[in-house]
Amino acid sequence: MIQDLFSPSVQHALDIVGIFVFAISGALLAVRKNFDVFGIVVLAEVTALGGGIFRDVVIGAVPPAAFVDLGYFITPLFAAALVFFLHPEVERTQLAVNVFDAAGLGLFCVTGTTKAYEYGLGLTASAALGLATAVGGGVLRDIIANEVPSLVRWDRDLYAVPAIVGSAMVALCINYDMVNAFTSSLAVVTTFVLRLLALRYHWRAPRAWHRRSTAVEVEEVAS
Amino acid sequence: MIQDLFSPSVQHALDIVGIFVFAISGALLAVRKNFDVFGIVVLAEVTALGGGIFRDVVIGAVPPAAFVDLGYFITPLFAAALVFFLHPEVERTQLAVNVFDAAGLGLFCVTGTTKAYEYGLGLTASAALGLATAVGGGVLRDIIANEVPSLVRWDRDLYAVPAIVGSAMVALCINYDMVNAFTSSLAVVTTFVLRLLALRYHWRAPRAWHRRSTAVEVEEVAS
Amino acid sequence: MIQDLFSPSVQHALDIVGIFVFAISGALLAVRKNFDVFGIVVLAEVTALGGGIFRDVVIGAVPPAAFVDLGYFITPLFAAALVFFLHPEVERTQLAVNVFDAAGLGLFCVTGTTKAYEYGLGLTASAALGLATAVGGGVLRDIIANEVPSLVRWDRDLYAVPAIVGSAMVALCINYDMVNAFTSSLAVVTTFVLRLLALRYHWRAPRAWHRRSTAVEVEEVAS
Repeated sequence: MIQDLFSPSVQHALDIVGIFVFAISGALLAVRKNFDVFGIVVLAEVTALGGGIFRDVVIGAVPPAAFVDLGYFITPLFAAALVFFLHPEVERTQLAVNVFDAAGLGLFCVTGTTKAYEYGLGLTASAALGLATAVGGGVLRDIIANEVPSLVRWDRDLYAVPAIVGSAMVALCINYDMVNAFTSSLAVVTTFVLRLLALRYHWRAPRAWHRRSTAVEVEEVAS
Repeated sequence: MIQDLFSPSVQHALDIVGIFVFAISGALLAVRKNFDVFGIVVLAEVTALGGGIFRDVVIGAVPPAAFVDLGYFITPLFAAALVFFLHPEVERTQLAVNVFDAAGLGLFCVTGTTKAYEYGLGLTASAALGLATAVGGGVLRDIIANEVPSLVRWDRDLYAVPAIVGSAMVALCINYDMVNAFTSSLAVVTTFVLRLLALRYHWRAPRAWHRRSTAVEVEEVAS
Repeated sequence: MIQDLFSPSVQHALDIVGIFVFAISGALLAVRKNFDVFGIVVLAEVTALGGGIFRDVVIGAVPPAAFVDLGYFITPLFAAALVFFLHPEVERTQLAVNVFDAAGLGLFCVTGTTKAYEYGLGLTASAALGLATAVGGGVLRDIIANEVPSLVRWDRDLYAVPAIVGSAMVALCINYDMVNAFTSSLAVVTTFVLRLLALRYHWRAPRAWHRRSTAVEVEEVAS
């Protein structure tokens, strides 16, 4: 049962914006890790397209959109070039990067969940795959950069919760047949605002109970 | 040529048990690495479902069972919750974890090899994919935790050999048309017992010949 | 539109040679990282087959050739055995390894790009996927060995550029309907020679502009 919940052009535009902002975050990490220009391009492409390729392979939408639509492939190249030539300026706008990344998170939750549902997955599975789409690129980025993914580190501001809320909102809207421009935008904006609040107020997620070894915490903070 | 070698309900029950014990091992590593609650969930899900998702994508069984059957997705959440609230108790039962993990290894070898064959792979390829199903989740777990996978480290007790034996036994049974409850159980139990013996007697695999640099060994032991 | 640009036997022979030399490079890294015999096999298989499995999953050619053709699976075992028993001799021939690896890079660019096009991808996407086929195994190898992939490190000789040139040459040949034994060989040889020149003259790729922090460079060189 494949149905289009969005008009294709809207989905495409949302995707391109999300790809661009995620590519910026990948390219910036590559610069910080001292990678060369190809490392910057690789990390930009992987961060931007990794989540979507995983989603498309899982739902059987092969070849994935990233290999069909030239725009998906070229957008990260622009982001990489921007970071390559202007990275001190881009880094100085870390706030802007965080804002764009939060927007990307919201966009990918919505488009990922929607596309998974269009390919016949159940509501919970669609939300889970939407979440994986949104966070997957970042996890791949961190793995290639040989770092513990931000997603799972306790000393990073909440990233998963906004994405879970956004994906769940979309799944609920699908369930009650209420997917439209307004509810979709609402899900994007909610994810976006929650992520910004998490950054602003340094919301953290709890670690396992009884995790009170001071030595370990000191070591972690120092690293 | 898709045929059911097991009754679906048996295969399903075996899968759920294997998923649960692998999820426990993932969640425990997350606690040890000081990840937050979402890190625990992510590592539980990845460890439990990673091998199976890889297998299903490779044989073209998309969407993978992990995204179709809600039980596959929810089981790791229970395991993560258990570890989150009770981890000192769970860790104290490291023996129990090792026992369950060994059981999971046996179960996944059998179900992985069987499912691969049902989707038309040859016997050797089925055994190889069954092996990949059984060890894949653990490798992904270690990669996300930014560690060298236990599977390939010489200073860890044998893990690959029991899985290879189990997968090969299943492939042989398929070849001689002898797949039934008894032979399948035998393969699970053989894998299980071999793994426990490897743990009990610290069986190690050899490294490459002439690898006699003391400095390197000391460094490895110390790390 | 699936068409055979190569005769199957030629494509198969080229693949096997490429798989063998990549497997050697994976097995050697495993020895250097002090992995046990299964680690050597795992890294040989992953390095040799990883790029091709990714390509086949992406284009929907499932099960991937690596799980259908027994030769693809067994070749890395021979490479692993060779390294296991003879690794000081093999390492002493680091030059030979680099030469073979360069040949593998050229071969995989050509076969990867060609196969992607045969499965209906556009020219740019085919070249991108050919490139991913050629470098993907090496990236997976480095990730499992818990190292920053050589591909993205600025202090490694150029690897991406020869592969990009080779993939682009094949895509151009396809575009002008000029794929034949001569042009394919030319693409392989060009990639091969460019990579050897990069090794010989230590060609490096630039890092992002204004990346002039001495502290960072010293740290990187020391690591």
